[in-house]
Amino acid sequence: MTATVHRFPQRQASLDPMIALVAGDLNLVNAVILDRMQSQIPLIPELAGHLIAGGGKRMRPMLTLASARLIGYEGTRHHRLAAAVEFIHTATLLHDDVVDGSDLRRGRRTANTIWGNPATVLVGDFLFSRSFELMVEDGSQKVLKILSSASAVIAEGEVNQLTAARKVDLGEERYLDIIGAKTAALFAAACRISAVVAERNDAEERALDAYGRNLGIAFQLVDDAIDYVSDAGTMGKDAGDDFREGKVTLPVILAYARGGPDERKFWKDAVEGRRDSDEDLARAIELIRATRAIDDTLARARHYGQRAIDALGPFGASDAKAAMVEAVEFAISRAF
Amino acid sequence: MTATVHRFPQRQASLDPMIALVAGDLNLVNAVILDRMQSQIPLIPELAGHLIAGGGKRMRPMLTLASARLIGYEGTRHHRLAAAVEFIHTATLLHDDVVDGSDLRRGRRTANTIWGNPATVLVGDFLFSRSFELMVEDGSQKVLKILSSASAVIAEGEVNQLTAARKVDLGEERYLDIIGAKTAALFAAACRISAVVAERNDAEERALDAYGRNLGIAFQLVDDAIDYVSDAGTMGKDAGDDFREGKVTLPVILAYARGGPDERKFWKDAVEGRRDSDEDLARAIELIRATRAIDDTLARARHYGQRAIDALGPFGASDAKAAMVEAVEFAISRAF
Repeated sequence: MTATVHRFPQRQASLDPMIALVAGDLNLVNAVILDRMQSQIPLIPELAGHLIAGGGKRMRPMLTLASARLIGYEGTRHHRLAAAVEFIHTATLLHDDVVDGSDLRRGRRTANTIWGNPATVLVGDFLFSRSFELMVEDGSQKVLKILSSASAVIAEGEVNQLTAARKVDLGEERYLDIIGAKTAALFAAACRISAVVAERNDAEERALDAYGRNLGIAFQLVDDAIDYVSDAGTMGKDAGDDFREGKVTLPVILAYARGGPDERKFWKDAVEGRRDSDEDLARAIELIRATRAIDDTLARARHYGQRAIDALGPFGASDAKAAMVEAVEFAISRAF
Repeated sequence: MTATVHRFPQRQASLDPMIALVAGDLNLVNAVILDRMQSQIPLIPELAGHLIAGGGKRMRPMLTLASARLIGYEGTRHHRLAAAVEFIHTATLLHDDVVDGSDLRRGRRTANTIWGNPATVLVGDFLFSRSFELMVEDGSQKVLKILSSASAVIAEGEVNQLTAARKVDLGEERYLDIIGAKTAALFAAACRISAVVAERNDAEERALDAYGRNLGIAFQLVDDAIDYVSDAGTMGKDAGDDFREGKVTLPVILAYARGGPDERKFWKDAVEGRRDSDEDLARAIELIRATRAIDDTLARARHYGQRAIDALGPFGASDAKAAMVEAVEFAISRAF
C-alpha cells in the first residue's frame, strides 16, 4: 500500500506550472473576454477594460482551465464559461470598490475614482448580465444553476460582511461564513463547472468543488495575514491597508479574542475608525505578533490548503494535478 | 370586411380591468416574491421589502400574467418568471436610486437614504442573482436567453443614459434608444416570455414583444410629460423633479430643438444644473407650452401606444385583450 501524504514545502512555491499548463487556453479565454466586454457605448469597454486589463492573475478562469485539464476534457465549452466566471468576478470587484470607497486595487487607481460610482455600478451590472448571456449560450442547465447560485451566495456574503463591518467581536465562525460566500463560492464554482461540461460523475464534481472552495478560503486568509506582514506593495496592497480601513479579518479576530481588556479596547477603537496612525499600526502588528495571530491565521490557511490538496485524491498523478497542488502551495507561501 | 380601428378615447382609461384579470395570479406571484427575497442576512429582506412592498403597481409581472391570459396559457410556470422579472426591475431601481442620488421614489424615502449606497448596491446584486436562480429553476433556455439579453440591454441603456447626462443636445433619436433599452426592453421581455412558456409560435412571441416594447416607450414618454404638467404628487413624483435634476427628457429635447438662441441658452443652463429655482421651473413650463413640446411628446406617446394596440392584432377578441388595450389607454390618459 502506498500512501500519498502531502507536506507543505519550506521553499517558495510558484504559480508558474499552472500558468504554463493553461497558457494556450487562457489566450482563448482572454479573446472571449475582450470580445464580450464590447458595447456600442464606449464607456463600457473603457471602464471594464481598465480593471480587466489591469494585471489580475485570472485566478478563477485558470482554475476552470486547470480543472478541465485534470479530468482530460478535450472540448472548448469551458473557454466561454471561464470568461463568464471572470465577468462575475470583475462585476463583484467593481461593486466592492464602490461599497468600500477604495482608491487603489492591484496598485492602480480604482474605476470608481476615475469614472465615479454611478458608472462603476452600472458597468458592473452590464458585466454581470453579460456573464449570464455567456452561460446561456453554453446552454448547460446545471452550469447555470451552479453559477447563478454562486452569484446569489456572493451577494449574500457581501451584505453579510457589510452588516458585520466594524464589529470587532465578529468571531471566527461568522468570518469564515463571510469569506466562504464572498471568495470561496466562486473558486468552487469555477472548478466544478469543468466537471459538468466534461460530464463527469458527481464524486468528481464534488472533489473539484471542494478543491476550489478550500483553496479560496486559504487564499483569503493568507491575504489577510499579508496585510500585517508585508513590507509594501505585495499584491498591489500596502501593509496596513486592512488595518487603516478598520477591516475585521482573522488576524484581528484572533488578536482581539486573545487580548486582555486594554488590547480589546485598542482593537475596538481601531475597527471603529479611531486608530489609524503609523504608531497605531505598529502597535497592532506588535499585538498580533504577541498573540501569535498571524502564525495561527496561516495555520488555519494551511489547514484549508491541505483539504484542497486532499480533495484531489480521486484524480491520478498528472502534470495538471501537480500544478494544482503547487497552486495551493503558492497560495500559502505568499506570506513568507 | 370588418376593420378594427382603434381611437384613443377622451375619457380617463383605467388599469382596473387588467388588475381584475390577473388578481388571482398576482397573489401567487407576490407569494413567490416574498418567499424568494428571504435570506439569512436580515438586512436583505428588510431593504428589498421596503421597495417591493412600497406601492409599486407590479406593472411588469401584470404584463406577463395578462399576456398568458391572452393566449390561453393554463400552466403555472409564468408565476415564477413574473417574479424574476419583478426582481430584475427592483434591482434596477435600487441601482438607479444610487446612481441618481435620489431621495424619494413613489413618494417614499429611497433605500439608499435609509440604508446607504453600499447596502443598496449589494441588495440589488442579490435580487439580480435571485432572478436568475428563478429563471434557471424554470429551466427554459429560451426564457433565459430573452431575460439575460434584456438585462444586458438595460445595463447598456443605463450607461448610455449616464454618458448622455446633462447633454442638452442629446436629440430625440438617442433618447429613444435610451428609453428603448432602459424601460421598453423589460416590458417587451415580460410579455414575450408568456408566449415562450405556452409554446406559441414565433409570430405570437413577436406580437407580444412588440406590444410590451411600444407600451414601455409610451409609458416613459407620458411620465416625462407628466413631470411638466402635474400639479403635485402624481405617481409619488412632484412636478418639476426631472427639471430640477437637469434630466434631458423628450419635452426638453423638443423645446430645445424648437427654441431660439435665448431659449437654448436657458435649457443648456438648466440641464447643466444652473437653473433650478421655482421661477426657472415656471419659465421652463412656459417654454414647453410655447413650443408645444408636451403636446408633441404625448403625440409621440400615442404613436407608440397605437403600435402596441395594433401589435395585438393577431389575437382574437377577449377580456384579456380588452384589458391590455385599456392598459395602453391608461398609460396615455395619465397625462390628462
